[in-house]
Amino acid sequence: MDKILRIDMGAAGGPKMKVEDLGQYAGLGGRALTSAMIAAEVEPTANPLGAENKLVIAPGLLSGTVAAMSGRISVGCKSPLTGGIKEANSGGQAAQVLAKLGYAAIVLEGLAPEGKLYKILINKDGVKIEPADEYKMLPNYDLIDKIKGVYGDKVTCMSIGPAGEMKLSASSIAITDMEFRPTRHAGRGGVGAVMGAKGVKVIIMDDAGLKNREPKDPEKFREANKKWVEGLRSHAVTGQALPAYGTNVLVNIINESGGFPTRNFKTGQFEGASAISGETFADIETKRGGNPTHGCHRGCVIQCSGTYVDKNGKFVSKQPEYETTWAHGANCGIDDPDTIAMLDFLDDNYGLDTIDMGAAIGIAMEAGIIKFGDKEGAINLIKEIGKGTYLGKIIGSGAAIAAKVFGVERAPVVKGQAMPAYDPRAIQGIGVTYATSTMGADHTAGYCIATNILKCGGFVDPLKSEGQIELSRNLQIATAAIDSTGMCLFIAFAILDQPETFQALVDMLNAFYGLSLDADGVAALGKKVLSAERDFNKKAGFTAAHDRLPRYFYTDKLPPHNKVFEVTDKELDSVFNW
Amino acid sequence: MDKILRIDMGAAGGPKMKVEDLGQYAGLGGRALTSAMIAAEVEPTANPLGAENKLVIAPGLLSGTVAAMSGRISVGCKSPLTGGIKEANSGGQAAQVLAKLGYAAIVLEGLAPEGKLYKILINKDGVKIEPADEYKMLPNYDLIDKIKGVYGDKVTCMSIGPAGEMKLSASSIAITDMEFRPTRHAGRGGVGAVMGAKGVKVIIMDDAGLKNREPKDPEKFREANKKWVEGLRSHAVTGQALPAYGTNVLVNIINESGGFPTRNFKTGQFEGASAISGETFADIETKRGGNPTHGCHRGCVIQCSGTYVDKNGKFVSKQPEYETTWAHGANCGIDDPDTIAMLDFLDDNYGLDTIDMGAAIGIAMEAGIIKFGDKEGAINLIKEIGKGTYLGKIIGSGAAIAAKVFGVERAPVVKGQAMPAYDPRAIQGIGVTYATSTMGADHTAGYCIATNILKCGGFVDPLKSEGQIELSRNLQIATAAIDSTGMCLFIAFAILDQPETFQALVDMLNAFYGLSLDADGVAALGKKVLSAERDFNKKAGFTAAHDRLPRYFYTDKLPPHNKVFEVTDKELDSVFNW
Repeated sequence: MDKILRIDMGAAGGPKMKVEDLGQYAGLGGRALTSAMIAAEVEPTANPLGAENKLVIAPGLLSGTVAAMSGRISVGCKSPLTGGIKEANSGGQAAQVLAKLGYAAIVLEGLAPEGKLYKILINKDGVKIEPADEYKMLPNYDLIDKIKGVYGDKVTCMSIGPAGEMKLSASSIAITDMEFRPTRHAGRGGVGAVMGAKGVKVIIMDDAGLKNREPKDPEKFREANKKWVEGLRSHAVTGQALPAYGTNVLVNIINESGGFPTRNFKTGQFEGASAISGETFADIETKRGGNPTHGCHRGCVIQCSGTYVDKNGKFVSKQPEYETTWAHGANCGIDDPDTIAMLDFLDDNYGLDTIDMGAAIGIAMEAGIIKFGDKEGAINLIKEIGKGTYLGKIIGSGAAIAAKVFGVERAPVVKGQAMPAYDPRAIQGIGVTYATSTMGADHTAGYCIATNILKCGGFVDPLKSEGQIELSRNLQIATAAIDSTGMCLFIAFAILDQPETFQALVDMLNAFYGLSLDADGVAALGKKVLSAERDFNKKAGFTAAHDRLPRYFYTDKLPPHNKVFEVTDKELDSVFNW
Repeated sequence: MDKILRIDMGAAGGPKMKVEDLGQYAGLGGRALTSAMIAAEVEPTANPLGAENKLVIAPGLLSGTVAAMSGRISVGCKSPLTGGIKEANSGGQAAQVLAKLGYAAIVLEGLAPEGKLYKILINKDGVKIEPADEYKMLPNYDLIDKIKGVYGDKVTCMSIGPAGEMKLSASSIAITDMEFRPTRHAGRGGVGAVMGAKGVKVIIMDDAGLKNREPKDPEKFREANKKWVEGLRSHAVTGQALPAYGTNVLVNIINESGGFPTRNFKTGQFEGASAISGETFADIETKRGGNPTHGCHRGCVIQCSGTYVDKNGKFVSKQPEYETTWAHGANCGIDDPDTIAMLDFLDDNYGLDTIDMGAAIGIAMEAGIIKFGDKEGAINLIKEIGKGTYLGKIIGSGAAIAAKVFGVERAPVVKGQAMPAYDPRAIQGIGVTYATSTMGADHTAGYCIATNILKCGGFVDPLKSEGQIELSRNLQIATAAIDSTGMCLFIAFAILDQPETFQALVDMLNAFYGLSLDADGVAALGKKVLSAERDFNKKAGFTAAHDRLPRYFYTDKLPPHNKVFEVTDKELDSVFNW
């Protein structure tokens, strides 16, 4: 992981690659690297689909090692959805494989000539860039099938579906999992559209013949990793709830809290919640011969992912994540797991962010195009995207654009990106993160649910404004640091509650790199990342006015608590004062 | 003109009106009034389609008097297209009639319940607000026909077509002309969508039994108006070119300059220019029995409008304005006047901004949906809007949204609004106005063409950056003042060149209101208007980064001059330093 692979897709005579030293980016990984590179190298007022934008793909600092949970990859660019800087973070196999291949980052630059499509092949012998016309407009599952026939199923792919090729603003980059299925996605912010603009259909990575990365101090590293795994296994969330039910364990919890946004954020409880709960999903999967407890990448000890099968035991999709279950379920008034799993599959297949898709369908329902609760209608709307119809292109452009085109006022978006599965009127802390995150509305940027609802790292009353700023600030700082390590964000539950588990993470970093980081050093890294992102966004034209929720969250009360978002503008403007 | 009519469309039990004194707005008219009111009363982060937005309709300070050219009306709101403050300015009969009715402004507030549609009737006896379900989704010409049957053709209407009812971001408000045709439009920024959100289909105004407004000093006023008319008639642009050929006189001139944006701003000259020139249009109109010399409102002495008829002498549309001829002509590679006139009619009929429509069709052509030059295809695209199809909704949302949905990088927009008919790479002064105007890309906000090309008020070389900032600054200040008087902007040619004509305007204002304004006072008014607008936009989230042209104007050279836009960011940021 000491080199950067740059590919100029617009070079005269076809794509040209070069391999560079890390240079000014030495010591950075994951989000710290993608954001530093975008901030340093991309003109903030550039068009996200233009030659000036770059797509940076970076494993984390501990990816490619034996450290448990280190398989997250960061994808950075200027976002076509938000117009600001973007880091979309995903599981799957790519981080481990790319790190073992020795690349701290792949950087796609320039623009391929209109209509040209390429595949990039990376293995221990080097890099090849070849035309990929045979893959044009293939959905991700079909693409992977074709690739399997040629390259086998031991490789790892990062690919775009038709949505990315059409440069739709809500398109994702799919990443294959351990079963070589394109189920994990760098989903948010339209990173797939940028890959599409670069003319890259798929990056095929093969780590055959390569070993895990070696720490500077193997003994200390092994010891720390042992404590690390013990810590994760002993915490209730990472050791019990997530393995058993996956992220869908949250359906009943958030519904109970009154913050489960229902029918385009009109109420905070869904009468059909229990039908789509994590318990119900696990039960269906177990009964039908699916699998509720499964990891999305090698080295995962939490095992929150799963496999959803139909009544005949045939694979439908991965177990939908909580945010997907909410987006295609409660937010659309749909209480049917089979429909939700099918929508999850379609999103993955066409290469779309499930959150913005659920929100966009909610907007279409609000506009009267289909009715709330219309299962078949929702499925058809996503299929329209696969067909490339105009309706499909509107939906595939995300909730903010769909609301504009359909003339709908109530669009639950911040900086153009759809809000996830937590209503900020009932869970005020997450509203602070939605409003102020550099990413647009994003629960993962500072997951206040942990403390507001799950009572990890203490408790801050979700219905009051007090304490939310500090909570969101600290979580945003910690998250920016975690996103740089390659660690799965779900480690946060354990490190918030167990100082020794946090110390084990720091010890791993120190043992691997020969550093002497402490908690302050980790926080300093997080702040540095956020500052670079804020600075880019400022130059791109973002101001305090963009660090706000849509107006109706301040004026329309959400049942059952009948609360509005109460954190003041002045408080919001203090999040990044540290 | 000493009262304000406010109608709360969302009042319990149905719309409620009240008539107020001018209060804090005393002494303001037109744009000065609309912008002051929006800045003072509308939450800058409000959703433009929400209850917090207001639609303010205000005649100018001299409207309703015998002053020549005083028939312009201002329509203000927070724009659904730009997200900033908006003043869309139009001719037609409304300004004169509303002023004679005594209203300095009509203010539409709140939101009618979903699905409700109203008409507002105003005459000397008062105001009535009635349901207008019978007008639902009627195009403007059909609507006016129905209204004629009930109210006669001596009334004046401001109405929205299907585009406004669908709340599309590029929808206009139509204003009837002297022949009771809905040919004049408050076109830019989606003001029609705001009227649609308010649930108002049409405002029917009747000035029967009312006299012109009386000046404080009738003698001085009459004398000044006489000099005013003489000045306008003696200037080559307002006395000869505009009467003879209308605004289309510019086709050959701008094409010759190399700044006539062709095929979505790819080149600066169009091989089909002479086929769509003002000379050609006038010739066709004369031969077929149309009329190339005609006024759009009572009291016009420039007579730049006209009537376009088909081969059988049957009315097709008003004579398309230069920007329309460009938008639907050169920008789409179309060189056929009949097609352009039909597109002009369709835009007017459905209630759409012709500039954003031509730009959006150019984007659709760039995306390969139809080919450049496809006349029938262009007509069908606008008809799609009338049908309310998804493709139609995308196009009707304007060029910026269309580019997003179609994945097109090269969108000629600033602050979400399409650039008009002058390429800023060949005419650098207008680029300064496009970039920095509070309105988004807008030629009328500071018409540097006057000095860059027509050599009115001196000459500043259009191909150099020198002098453009000062030119645009001064014109933006002057325009903001003129837009407040109700005067047609075309008076600018004469007042730039003839000090005595400018003095006549000032004398009219002073004689009418008993003031003692001088040139400095006029400039101070313009600065005050711009400052209020800039302040609103700042609070709405606009920064220096928004005062820029799209990146490709800085990187892609425009033939035939092979120039990029050369005014620096630093210079742009100095426009409002006065």
